[in-house]
Amino acid sequence: MAPPPSMAVSPLVALIIRIITFICLFISIIVIATNKVTVVSRKTQTEVLFSSFYAYRYMLASGVIGMAYTILQTALTIFTVSTGNRLGGDGFAFLDFFGDKVISYLLATGAAAGFGLTVDLGRDEVVDSVIGSFLQKANVSTSLLFIGFLFSAISSVFSSLSLPKRVD
Amino acid sequence: MAPPPSMAVSPLVALIIRIITFICLFISIIVIATNKVTVVSRKTQTEVLFSSFYAYRYMLASGVIGMAYTILQTALTIFTVSTGNRLGGDGFAFLDFFGDKVISYLLATGAAAGFGLTVDLGRDEVVDSVIGSFLQKANVSTSLLFIGFLFSAISSVFSSLSLPKRVD
Repeated sequence: MAPPPSMAVSPLVALIIRIITFICLFISIIVIATNKVTVVSRKTQTEVLFSSFYAYRYMLASGVIGMAYTILQTALTIFTVSTGNRLGGDGFAFLDFFGDKVISYLLATGAAAGFGLTVDLGRDEVVDSVIGSFLQKANVSTSLLFIGFLFSAISSVFSSLSLPKRVD
Repeated sequence: MAPPPSMAVSPLVALIIRIITFICLFISIIVIATNKVTVVSRKTQTEVLFSSFYAYRYMLASGVIGMAYTILQTALTIFTVSTGNRLGGDGFAFLDFFGDKVISYLLATGAAAGFGLTVDLGRDEVVDSVIGSFLQKANVSTSLLFIGFLFSAISSVFSSLSLPKRVD
């Protein structure tokens, strides 16, 4: 199998992928951070927030870090698209490569931690009857984070393919 | 920043990384699959198994798939080390690249799903007093899966660096 004719990805395509990643992470963060439900028992009212669960805290943290990185990369890609030159050359290709890899793993683990908790909590009928709406919103946020991860993984494939030539 | 003098990774180093990945996944699978605890209440005995939780089922599935893939890659790497030639040339470099990427994401999500569930379950005092030993064993298995993921991520970096030259 011969390698494809050109492995350098158009900066415009790279930009679109980054923007989709950003939008998914942005909405995911808003949904999880505003997610709350008030549980009323006989005498007390308890507020359940995303911060009541470590898995959702980690999810939010991974989403925020991922979004900050994506904004930075989007700015760099806009610079590339508008000037036609990639800032810094080969050195930046390695930064992109490792940055994209680490951030996509971070988003993958964030989404998986969220699903890991939500799915099994939701299977408990008592829990589901009390905070079912909370879990549904958490699921929406986790799904968006997962979609954001998928697009960050595409960015990671692109940055791997754009690595400088191997020195034989 | 100039690229390093040579980006092709020694097949022997690649082999060692694969073998460590295999060992971690193998022990992780055994620990989670044999994990069980019997909960005795007044009248009934209930067995809690890994399969009682979807997160642990997913963990086991990702570990098994990851192990099968690692065995295949180990065999191919042994072939490379012993003959000095890589089977199939550039085509296989792309298969390695995408295979390593997908499998490392799979292991990352498997470990994260396990942690996401175990950490928040363990924070519940009632749950922890009943199935605390079960959760501790699950944590050991998840930690090993996570270490396996880290080594598979190293393999993924190697296979990205070994991609055929970019065609400009």
